[in-house]
Amino acid sequence: LLGHRDRVLSVAFSPDGLKLATGSSDTTIIVWQVDNAKRLFQINARPYSVGSVVWSPDGQQLVSTSGDKTIKFWDGSNGNQIQTDSKPCTDGHTGWIDSLAISSDGTFIATASEDKTVRLWSTETHQQIEHALKHTDEVYCVAISPNGTLLASGGRHREVYLWSI
Amino acid sequence: LLGHRDRVLSVAFSPDGLKLATGSSDTTIIVWQVDNAKRLFQINARPYSVGSVVWSPDGQQLVSTSGDKTIKFWDGSNGNQIQTDSKPCTDGHTGWIDSLAISSDGTFIATASEDKTVRLWSTETHQQIEHALKHTDEVYCVAISPNGTLLASGGRHREVYLWSI
Repeated sequence: LLGHRDRVLSVAFSPDGLKLATGSSDTTIIVWQVDNAKRLFQINARPYSVGSVVWSPDGQQLVSTSGDKTIKFWDGSNGNQIQTDSKPCTDGHTGWIDSLAISSDGTFIATASEDKTVRLWSTETHQQIEHALKHTDEVYCVAISPNGTLLASGGRHREVYLWSI
Repeated sequence: LLGHRDRVLSVAFSPDGLKLATGSSDTTIIVWQVDNAKRLFQINARPYSVGSVVWSPDGQQLVSTSGDKTIKFWDGSNGNQIQTDSKPCTDGHTGWIDSLAISSDGTFIATASEDKTVRLWSTETHQQIEHALKHTDEVYCVAISPNGTLLASGGRHREVYLWSI
């Protein structure tokens, strides 16, 4: 499939298997129709590289990590950015986001960052949920338990954190 | 949770949510019991760093990427390595494995490597399945479609590959 102009950093099938989202250093996400390998739409996240891309379990939203240290929410059917009305009361990540996980029910996202925190984000309000979870060093990986009640994270320091949500 | 002696590179909850597997640069995987945060067992993969760790959907196996450019299969209940009787007829990856995906039915694994290939592995025979899928440059990411019939991969080159399995 030709369309990106730089490295492809993530590939993700939609939950129904009909679409493929690809994120690239070229600052775009392309959503492809799988059966005919054609481009459905392209999301412009300029000027920031797109890292990880995940679909919400209902396929309604795409969530991506961005080179500006934020996560962005997009309409999974047309690629429009989902705008948030108000600025968050917290400041968000101040370092690169290395890992992104979505809960199995799709209600929230967890991000792990080199700013030594894990943060949770609502897929309904698209805002950060409560406070950052603090590590003693950079966080590389995060996972959400299948029932959505626990979070695990690890990173540069040898400790593994298990958080009750 | 204290136990690793170096960076923690991956965290993965078992499908039933009762266990957590963590992979580390210290060349071990630790499997923790989630409810009491105790170590159930530790897998020694010395002398190679452990990268990604994933559980099979039935929780019977753990699969990890290793600093020796192989993937390794472990018994999810006790950490014993699942040995294969014969050497594979193919040579396996010759570069670092950057991404690991398991099919939703758990029958096969896909790996993306800097050796410019994607390879498939059976969770039954623990051998590579057929030939490597060749990219023109390093492969960074791979995903398997929900029904297990398609594979998508991307990497340093701007092309996205969609493979029929």
